[in-house]
Amino acid sequence: MDLTGGNYIAGLLSSEGKSTFKAVNPFDASELPTDFHEATIEEVNKAATKANEAFAVYGKKSGTEKAGFLETIADEILNLGDALIECCCAESGLPVGRITGERGRTMGQLKLFASLLREGSWVDARIDNAIPNREPLPKVDIRSMQKPLGAVGIFGASNFPLAFSVAGGDTASALASGCTIVVKGHPSHPGTCEMIAFAINKAAEKCNMPKGVFSLVQGQSVAIGMAIVNHPLIKAIGFTGSNKGGKAIFDAANNRPEPIPVYAEMGSSNPVFILPQALKQNGNEIAQGLTNSVTLGVGQFCTNPGIVFLENAEVLSGFKQAVSEHFEQVEANTMLNGGIKKAFDEGIAFLNSKNGVNLLAKGKVNDEGYKGTSYVFETSAKNFIKENYLEEENFGPSTITITADSREELLASANKLQGHLTATIFGTEEDLNNYTDLIQILEQKVGRLILNNYPTGVEVCHSMVHGGPFPSTTNSRSTSVGTGAISRFTRPFCYQNFPNHLLPNELKNENPLQIFRIVDGEITK
Amino acid sequence: MDLTGGNYIAGLLSSEGKSTFKAVNPFDASELPTDFHEATIEEVNKAATKANEAFAVYGKKSGTEKAGFLETIADEILNLGDALIECCCAESGLPVGRITGERGRTMGQLKLFASLLREGSWVDARIDNAIPNREPLPKVDIRSMQKPLGAVGIFGASNFPLAFSVAGGDTASALASGCTIVVKGHPSHPGTCEMIAFAINKAAEKCNMPKGVFSLVQGQSVAIGMAIVNHPLIKAIGFTGSNKGGKAIFDAANNRPEPIPVYAEMGSSNPVFILPQALKQNGNEIAQGLTNSVTLGVGQFCTNPGIVFLENAEVLSGFKQAVSEHFEQVEANTMLNGGIKKAFDEGIAFLNSKNGVNLLAKGKVNDEGYKGTSYVFETSAKNFIKENYLEEENFGPSTITITADSREELLASANKLQGHLTATIFGTEEDLNNYTDLIQILEQKVGRLILNNYPTGVEVCHSMVHGGPFPSTTNSRSTSVGTGAISRFTRPFCYQNFPNHLLPNELKNENPLQIFRIVDGEITK
Repeated sequence: MDLTGGNYIAGLLSSEGKSTFKAVNPFDASELPTDFHEATIEEVNKAATKANEAFAVYGKKSGTEKAGFLETIADEILNLGDALIECCCAESGLPVGRITGERGRTMGQLKLFASLLREGSWVDARIDNAIPNREPLPKVDIRSMQKPLGAVGIFGASNFPLAFSVAGGDTASALASGCTIVVKGHPSHPGTCEMIAFAINKAAEKCNMPKGVFSLVQGQSVAIGMAIVNHPLIKAIGFTGSNKGGKAIFDAANNRPEPIPVYAEMGSSNPVFILPQALKQNGNEIAQGLTNSVTLGVGQFCTNPGIVFLENAEVLSGFKQAVSEHFEQVEANTMLNGGIKKAFDEGIAFLNSKNGVNLLAKGKVNDEGYKGTSYVFETSAKNFIKENYLEEENFGPSTITITADSREELLASANKLQGHLTATIFGTEEDLNNYTDLIQILEQKVGRLILNNYPTGVEVCHSMVHGGPFPSTTNSRSTSVGTGAISRFTRPFCYQNFPNHLLPNELKNENPLQIFRIVDGEITK
Repeated sequence: MDLTGGNYIAGLLSSEGKSTFKAVNPFDASELPTDFHEATIEEVNKAATKANEAFAVYGKKSGTEKAGFLETIADEILNLGDALIECCCAESGLPVGRITGERGRTMGQLKLFASLLREGSWVDARIDNAIPNREPLPKVDIRSMQKPLGAVGIFGASNFPLAFSVAGGDTASALASGCTIVVKGHPSHPGTCEMIAFAINKAAEKCNMPKGVFSLVQGQSVAIGMAIVNHPLIKAIGFTGSNKGGKAIFDAANNRPEPIPVYAEMGSSNPVFILPQALKQNGNEIAQGLTNSVTLGVGQFCTNPGIVFLENAEVLSGFKQAVSEHFEQVEANTMLNGGIKKAFDEGIAFLNSKNGVNLLAKGKVNDEGYKGTSYVFETSAKNFIKENYLEEENFGPSTITITADSREELLASANKLQGHLTATIFGTEEDLNNYTDLIQILEQKVGRLILNNYPTGVEVCHSMVHGGPFPSTTNSRSTSVGTGAISRFTRPFCYQNFPNHLLPNELKNENPLQIFRIVDGEITK
């Protein structure tokens, strides 16, 4: 397909805006040819209005119908063929293997939600039957289930141009819930966004979905995103990106005349704790694994470990030596865009300028395009406890080893942590027995706790929790990866004294969908 | 027991504050004898700190242990005997029968959550087993479940001095989740609060719970409540009360350095729609039922219907006549406190002053204590669509009938509605066939939709949804009544690559608690 540079507003290409922008190829910092039209406020308004209209129809679709839609989107993404892979690599600087894999993950996510819908029990159907002769008061028939919120806004991320962008996790979970969506494409990969929008539109047509079920607005301006957040017909927001962007959206959403929930995943430093026995027994292996985990995807995952806590010990210098040697061998690879590369380099310069923070080693340097060099620093737990900047994420391939002089200092460091997506502990059985308090502390700090494994790589499955206490997200009570994500876009809804034929199938006496339900307090099919 | 007028801070009576206040008996506006000490900021700080410390222990208690605690609280409330009933009636102006019933409901709520904990499946346990030889990447073991948030703040309501106060629904659900609590007692019934706190403390001692699991702070000042909301160790808020109070708490909580969720139930006008055939066939019966529903509990439930929509028809004047006659027979009964009575009377005076709003009828007048007279007004749908004040709740025994000149005007009125807790439709089978669009509209506006029944009376059961879109609550994705309320105080938490013996029982391979879980995508026991 040829890129048009337009927005997709409820099934129609639309290019009302006069200002345009171009994508930049991060491999060589060259501009790509297509002019993309910044969406106008009027286009956003049209998209939200159509999404709200479409919700009256789409919100009532059966699980089977929605599942078919999600599966068709996956098929249509595959039908875009190599052109999608080429466009996405050119816009993101990510290698073909990664993008091909990410396409598979994106399709897998859509299909996983489809399977959830076909099974159907996710709606949490509850039935309390009437007891007309109960004393002192009769009991009336009450039934409830989860229902979609309405039209919602989704913000694509830069670092997963497929899996967390136009047809990414937020889109899959929102469409699965029965919500209609207005997507703000990330301006780093507008061509990829347009191609995916084309695929979603085609799937919507094939599956006879109402046109407003999906719209894509593109643009570099903050105003377009805020127009979505502030639109009265938008009922929730999904966002993956920076702390600054996520917090601004959260604040705006709370200050609306009708506040709406914001699910902003704003990154994390993913603290790692290497306990004494593990360091002694597996230090070399961990040094290699840690280096890979930090530098995977040029450090541009939400789950790369940015702070690594250790206790002082005889073997410590050997471990740091090993980590340094591994880092020195890491090639400089292309980062997602110029802005990210610049912010990363500034973060490195800032750390280099600080007293008490020493550079341990750096990887290879290559000045071509937006290539990022890997860095490993060292500091003390005393310094970590004193200085707040050390906990902040520096998005890119760098990490800081932090040495505690005692068990107490290690625990004090853990206690000082704010919210993160993950925490990781490397420990032997003996270590874990000696550090049960560390596990307890970390349980309060993160959404996912990992033992003797690495945080990078977020499995898309039923039990994944990709979320965590503030500031890693604006809502710790949710996940943005895995099937649990669907409930971000739903609310419980209750029917009282409805005749059977007017109830949704999920709540009918005869349980036509054969789903698990709570009937008079018992879980039953 | 003798009232001391103190606060309960982590098991100890505490009266540090110098300013005191007295409860007022609404039957005759006389002051009751006890001086209650306003809690100090330092006492709030102590309560929150102790709650946080206690959480490390209480948050790990098994479902069986927590269930025993909740059941013991219920027993200890009953052990307070008639003294509780007398104190509560004297402070609330509510009759003995109502308070005795409410005590039963309060104990029933605690026991219902206990049964939920004993069954155990509410934690939403999910297991995805490892597939070490999966290609291209091995799949690691991932397991997740709901875990409590930490120490939380609970604000008691005035209108349910037992069922939504110190040991009310929010307390039951928070303690069931594993959270520890700091309760702000409502200053309308401080003696009742102290007695219930005594009962909870006794139960905590009997069940060997950590002392900080529960604290009660009392006071009339806004500052004490805000000190709870702003305390960094408090992780969520449950509130039932006014729009102004709830919104102020919501805003403060969102502006904290670490924002926290606020579950504020802020009331509702509970619109009722009486469709043409139902009006014709059952008008007289509905006139009586509606009057009861509006004036039940002197109109001081969150679910009394404050606006009633009708279509113009021949039978309309007969219906209004019948409603008027019923209202004229309603006795003036005692309202909860002087502030509520004053605000109600001001609301009535405001409506009486408005053009286009006519008084249809009023109930009996009695100037003793804080007795409230019942009122029914009439206006047009045109006026409702024009004027926003008509949708606002006037807390007390009044309602407004609103007449639409056409089906379109009725639907336009429904479309104009903001969020409410409930909506009710009276309709025959034919009516409901003719008004499917009305059902669709109302599904977007409320948490509970009722057919041919009354919204007052909130059944405490698994399927109840007592919540709704803003401004009826600050979080439509939750309920404050029924077992679904537990999830307000939990978040999903994920374990990666944990050995079986370090996992909580809910997630162990052998399923020792025999709960329903999602294992590799299948719901299984």
